[in-house]
Amino acid sequence: MNLDFTSDNATGASPEIMKAIVAANDGTAPAYGADEWSRRAEQALAQVFEREIAVFLVATGTAANALAISALVQPWGAALCHGFAHVAADECGAPEFFAGGAKLASVAGAAGKITPQTLADTLELMPRGIVKQAQPMALSLAQATECGSAYSLAEIAALSDMAHAAALGVHMDGARFANALVTLGCSPADMSWRAGVDVLSFGATKNGALACEAVIFFDPAKAEDFAYRRKRGGHTLSKGRLLGCQMLAYLEDGRWLRTAAHANLMAARLEAGLRGLAGVRLPWAREANEVFAIVPRAAHDRLQKEGARYHVWTPRALEREARPNAGEVFVRLISSFATQPAAIDRFVAVAGGG
Amino acid sequence: MNLDFTSDNATGASPEIMKAIVAANDGTAPAYGADEWSRRAEQALAQVFEREIAVFLVATGTAANALAISALVQPWGAALCHGFAHVAADECGAPEFFAGGAKLASVAGAAGKITPQTLADTLELMPRGIVKQAQPMALSLAQATECGSAYSLAEIAALSDMAHAAALGVHMDGARFANALVTLGCSPADMSWRAGVDVLSFGATKNGALACEAVIFFDPAKAEDFAYRRKRGGHTLSKGRLLGCQMLAYLEDGRWLRTAAHANLMAARLEAGLRGLAGVRLPWAREANEVFAIVPRAAHDRLQKEGARYHVWTPRALEREARPNAGEVFVRLISSFATQPAAIDRFVAVAGGG
Amino acid sequence: MNLDFTSDNATGASPEIMKAIVAANDGTAPAYGADEWSRRAEQALAQVFEREIAVFLVATGTAANALAISALVQPWGAALCHGFAHVAADECGAPEFFAGGAKLASVAGAAGKITPQTLADTLELMPRGIVKQAQPMALSLAQATECGSAYSLAEIAALSDMAHAAALGVHMDGARFANALVTLGCSPADMSWRAGVDVLSFGATKNGALACEAVIFFDPAKAEDFAYRRKRGGHTLSKGRLLGCQMLAYLEDGRWLRTAAHANLMAARLEAGLRGLAGVRLPWAREANEVFAIVPRAAHDRLQKEGARYHVWTPRALEREARPNAGEVFVRLISSFATQPAAIDRFVAVAGGG
Amino acid sequence: MNLDFTSDNATGASPEIMKAIVAANDGTAPAYGADEWSRRAEQALAQVFEREIAVFLVATGTAANALAISALVQPWGAALCHGFAHVAADECGAPEFFAGGAKLASVAGAAGKITPQTLADTLELMPRGIVKQAQPMALSLAQATECGSAYSLAEIAALSDMAHAAALGVHMDGARFANALVTLGCSPADMSWRAGVDVLSFGATKNGALACEAVIFFDPAKAEDFAYRRKRGGHTLSKGRLLGCQMLAYLEDGRWLRTAAHANLMAARLEAGLRGLAGVRLPWAREANEVFAIVPRAAHDRLQKEGARYHVWTPRALEREARPNAGEVFVRLISSFATQPAAIDRFVAVAGGG
Repeated sequence: MNLDFTSDNATGASPEIMKAIVAANDGTAPAYGADEWSRRAEQALAQVFEREIAVFLVATGTAANALAISALVQPWGAALCHGFAHVAADECGAPEFFAGGAKLASVAGAAGKITPQTLADTLELMPRGIVKQAQPMALSLAQATECGSAYSLAEIAALSDMAHAAALGVHMDGARFANALVTLGCSPADMSWRAGVDVLSFGATKNGALACEAVIFFDPAKAEDFAYRRKRGGHTLSKGRLLGCQMLAYLEDGRWLRTAAHANLMAARLEAGLRGLAGVRLPWAREANEVFAIVPRAAHDRLQKEGARYHVWTPRALEREARPNAGEVFVRLISSFATQPAAIDRFVAVAGGG
Repeated sequence: MNLDFTSDNATGASPEIMKAIVAANDGTAPAYGADEWSRRAEQALAQVFEREIAVFLVATGTAANALAISALVQPWGAALCHGFAHVAADECGAPEFFAGGAKLASVAGAAGKITPQTLADTLELMPRGIVKQAQPMALSLAQATECGSAYSLAEIAALSDMAHAAALGVHMDGARFANALVTLGCSPADMSWRAGVDVLSFGATKNGALACEAVIFFDPAKAEDFAYRRKRGGHTLSKGRLLGCQMLAYLEDGRWLRTAAHANLMAARLEAGLRGLAGVRLPWAREANEVFAIVPRAAHDRLQKEGARYHVWTPRALEREARPNAGEVFVRLISSFATQPAAIDRFVAVAGGG
Repeated sequence: MNLDFTSDNATGASPEIMKAIVAANDGTAPAYGADEWSRRAEQALAQVFEREIAVFLVATGTAANALAISALVQPWGAALCHGFAHVAADECGAPEFFAGGAKLASVAGAAGKITPQTLADTLELMPRGIVKQAQPMALSLAQATECGSAYSLAEIAALSDMAHAAALGVHMDGARFANALVTLGCSPADMSWRAGVDVLSFGATKNGALACEAVIFFDPAKAEDFAYRRKRGGHTLSKGRLLGCQMLAYLEDGRWLRTAAHANLMAARLEAGLRGLAGVRLPWAREANEVFAIVPRAAHDRLQKEGARYHVWTPRALEREARPNAGEVFVRLISSFATQPAAIDRFVAVAGGG
Repeated sequence: MNLDFTSDNATGASPEIMKAIVAANDGTAPAYGADEWSRRAEQALAQVFEREIAVFLVATGTAANALAISALVQPWGAALCHGFAHVAADECGAPEFFAGGAKLASVAGAAGKITPQTLADTLELMPRGIVKQAQPMALSLAQATECGSAYSLAEIAALSDMAHAAALGVHMDGARFANALVTLGCSPADMSWRAGVDVLSFGATKNGALACEAVIFFDPAKAEDFAYRRKRGGHTLSKGRLLGCQMLAYLEDGRWLRTAAHANLMAARLEAGLRGLAGVRLPWAREANEVFAIVPRAAHDRLQKEGARYHVWTPRALEREARPNAGEVFVRLISSFATQPAAIDRFVAVAGGG
């Protein structure tokens, strides 16, 4: 039984998306994104977000984030993001590279979430107009966060309002946008532009695509240079239909919501199962498809022996008092559209000593 | 009938490569290139090139070229390349971006080919050690070139020797490596490291892959930082097996040589057909899968009416005396692994007025 | 006798400017350009240019040019300049560095001057909106040029009009602005913004300052980010009065025009003297304080023996048919505010075999 | 009476250095640092540091630091520095710009000083070889620090050893090198390369020069590209003797040590005076020429009324429990080579209500 909970990108494409890739492969088509699939994908996204948008498809989340941030932040500026944020911790400096040497300024907050207070704290350190200091130009929020938490609509709106009041653009890293959306049960428009998001990295790869993300500008006028940025970054695929057809199939008939709902359901099942086990602690509530747990070392050993795969996580993500003791291990478990209930149950059983 | 000769990237993946993608899609696999397909692709490439190499798979040719050049050229350096080179003319400054603001220095030469004389001319303008000038650090050769010509082994070796003597690294843009290789009838090793190439952009996309190129270092020691460059450029695919499986299927049983041989054969058929038509001029010999022709405007009009697709090319690629007159049109025609003989014959017939 | 004609930067500051530096040195003053001298220098420049301007003082011409160009050109853009231009040939890629990897596109033209035709030729190669190509964003004109020639007001206006029509900003590299101005006999406003210049590198160093240049924006609104660019480039002097007091003294009572007039006069005397010598050819008319001459090798040898100092220049600056033969040497001779008539006369006498 | 304690760069050059500038100004000299003064300054520095070194003179501390860090850190790397460090907080991102988008990683520590423990904490977060993370490549220490504290030789050596063990180069920001040196009473060699420093920003501007800093490589082999970096940054002065003569006069007969000793003595006098006042708290010991004090608001008001100038400092530099209450103000006071004892005494008297 496949007990791989390392990441939602450990799985390939969903069967339907793979079918769409195969179907789109026939015949000739204009290159570099001028194909029919890409055009229709843009229309489908506009419909999903209930407004005119500018869309740029790319193959990786790092590209989407770094390019999006570079559109908001000048080289002498800074993007504010949580200290655990993927853009700050896991992209090898891609945002700084694409933004010409701009800074990422760290904002604190429990469970990977920025709060109005922590945002205010960081902004206070960066008064506008002090020439010797990098100027704050963007707020980058991850939805869901690196801790598997999700901002409520009110939280996003409050942070976006603060950002806009300080003349910052708002970027959302939506590598797991669908997972957060399903949890919130709202519309994509509600969770993005209606809550103040200016530019969205709309992820599909982790939720059933093979390699496809969209950078979405809710104000198309802000996107006029973006095609050059993408090309110059080497992110304009020549056989662009590969991206277009994935996004189309992803959105078709709400498929993306169903795959995310499944992944979340599996994570909830896992969370519930672990919660029932003696000696297991859950540091924060699951709000997407990631479960973080402090488990007894014995349970960890049993799981490893069983062939389960997952990441041991850094205790630094936890408040000092919540960190694992010598007999415990802090782990991250991610479910996907392909995770089977039986795998969850087996995982819990093994963890529980069964 | 499909008369699309715009580019070899107007076609999707070959059926066998698409099959490989579908097959590789099952189950879970380590992300970011740590998968089995990528590992085996590296081994297959090492076998093809008959030596230990360092391999980095990416999804676009622009990424391959820009990253490769950035590994050879410091920000205060220059890469020398033909004035028509894709890296200089068609990548929106990607090499300059990845190389931190380095320059591309233009080298002249007929039919898209640098010669020892034109290389010497450019090098003479860039004496080493003059602090106010960008320092020459790399020679970038396209094989095949943007004009569809190919360097002979002796030509590559002569240019590489000159480059090495001047302390330049040698990069080969092999977006159409296979097409040139088939024409030369030599081994991949002969056309690359044995002729002095240090870093190769080994293209697969134009020759049957969907989105896959390899940056190959023939001296793996020179590649130690490259994984950071690739990640930081956003070019490390999370579901990396997508790249690995394409490259594997591309190389399997010499498939890549067969698809290139077919594309070249179709181009040769087209060249021969056009050569037989009154009023058609061929400015230089076809040596890969691209045919450049100056055709009567009437022929062009008939082809357009028939639905044929191809690019009208800039007369500046031609010596002044060879440029089209008012009654002529200069066109570029590219065949691919999927081009049908019947399409060639129809194209020629229509061009000929038939 | 000092026969140093290597460059106008081989001389120190003029006595009056040195006096001003000494005078400004007393007491304490706000740092980073907030001092009284800098403020008054800005006012003096506004008066000289007869309009509201934004001024940024820096210590080097390379900084002025690179920063100015970076304000006009996005990273995916290109600045068009003459192939011999200082910004392209003598600044080790500084403009590309400050402009985030943008390109410099070479424009041809005799005697270092771009013409409407050569500008049109280059612009034709760079149609706007082709995503794979760097976008033309600025025209950079040197006044005087690297060949010691000067554009007429009509020429500047014609080129600026073409540039603006193509949506390019116009930068003027005025390292020798004063020398060209004296030759043209017009007002600083006429030779800059009235002729269409948007951003000017206003040089003082070569004409009597010690280390002082001003970047001047004729539309102050375009300069709002420039203080960050300058700081981030390390070009904001802490004891900023050093720059302010130089510029003030430079402009005071038209001192800058007198020093330039003297330098030009000396160059004219040298030109006249050389023109009278057998075997000396002057490839183009002197229009500032630089004289280019093809002299008999024997004359060169005599001058070297006499201790004269000057640069042997590259024959590539000459049309092929005008290049020196084996018995000739192509030399560049620059006069300054400090050049003595007796030195000119002695140089000519030695060159003439006297 | 001049009660300006804003910064040591509020003062001009010392009279002797100004005299040297005037003297060096006569006659012609080779440009771009090839002059005699620069050569002799390099020799003088080699003597001061008791070894062969590579020296590069520049006009600003930001340039010195940013260029030095760029020589140690690749674009995908990080320089570790204290969170209050000038390079991180006061240079508008210059190090990130010159290092091609590299990161600065913040290290904690009281009174502006990194400790072995805080360095270990930061290094632990940055394990080598994790491709998604910026790689630690340099440690940048300020001596003296932004808080006016100084590392002991043992502290520098301990931190350098840790840095080298982790394969990091060690940079020292010595904008106030002389002030720290005088406090420690050791040799320049002891406080730099003998304690493990690889590259030093050797400041002169704050201690009596007008605009002069040296980047010093203790291993000249590491400096081979640095001339290009400096030129490309626009930091190679054409009339380079301006820099050379300042550095020469600065070092001559130990002048730099005397001016620093005076500045320190004045700061000590100020510290002693303030310590004697009721209601004044000194958060940490003075170890250079900066005094930080928490003073009663009434004292602050009296000083302002008297025309005293100094910076109100951010309470964030203090541990939470040490921060000023509503009736207090946290101030920074800097003395220089030109500060008069009478000014100190007057300041203290006014602060004390006299």
